[in-house]
Amino acid sequence: MGIVIRPDSVPRHTLTNIMETKCFTLNHVHKDMVKKAHQTAARYPESVSEFEAVGLTPLFSRTMMAPYVAESMIQVGLEWRETLDIKSNNTKMVVGEVVEVILAANYIANDGFIDLQKAGSLTVAGLDAYHTTSKLFRLSYAKPDTPAK
Amino acid sequence: MGIVIRPDSVPRHTLTNIMETKCFTLNHVHKDMVKKAHQTAARYPESVSEFEAVGLTPLFSRTMMAPYVAESMIQVGLEWRETLDIKSNNTKMVVGEVVEVILAANYIANDGFIDLQKAGSLTVAGLDAYHTTSKLFRLSYAKPDTPAK
Repeated sequence: MGIVIRPDSVPRHTLTNIMETKCFTLNHVHKDMVKKAHQTAARYPESVSEFEAVGLTPLFSRTMMAPYVAESMIQVGLEWRETLDIKSNNTKMVVGEVVEVILAANYIANDGFIDLQKAGSLTVAGLDAYHTTSKLFRLSYAKPDTPAK
Repeated sequence: MGIVIRPDSVPRHTLTNIMETKCFTLNHVHKDMVKKAHQTAARYPESVSEFEAVGLTPLFSRTMMAPYVAESMIQVGLEWRETLDIKSNNTKMVVGEVVEVILAANYIANDGFIDLQKAGSLTVAGLDAYHTTSKLFRLSYAKPDTPAK
């Protein structure tokens, strides 16, 4: 998985933190915590804990140096693998390998599918519009000689 | 915007096509066309038109060499800018610059926000799970001294 980080016109603590610990976490956001999660985008000074400032709780597992967000229902722990420079718009893509996923067992279907709707995970459009989701269906692996189903 | 293309264990016509025309289109998918759109992922031979095979309609604008999907409600035209090798998993990220967006005027709010829910755009989880969305709210630009609202 990867995240894209905007140009260094201002100090970007996210990338500094990742390069110090060589790991990071991605935490799904649900509606009871979305305002706090959104607020972490504010440019706090490096000396300020974003967790404290916005009222979220850091959670450490046995294996990850980087904290998870305790309020999140699906927590993904990643080890840093590479950082790519996207020259077109002067951003960087940070790629990590998933090494740990923490979630309730009842979000996982028999075939390993993770039900994001059941977990209440939101999706964001642009920078600011948060949406809930409703599953229409899952479609089978597409093959040339078989119609979609 | 960018798209990630999987390893070249089989021929990937998408990348070949992009490098020939130096442009590509991204077309939002809504529920009345999602099965056809999903079916385009099947490995058709290069001689087969995916449009014909799945029953979608190519649409050409005055400016783009690559076809749009006529059935799509939001059509984005991009010029190729760069291709990045993601070594960690042997994929490629193809980055394009948006040069044209075709959509109905009533999907655009006064501030330029595009209402994806109104357009019926679906979101996909993993490779196969399609979801509709319901907007919760839009939040203001986050600032350290102001609570999220």
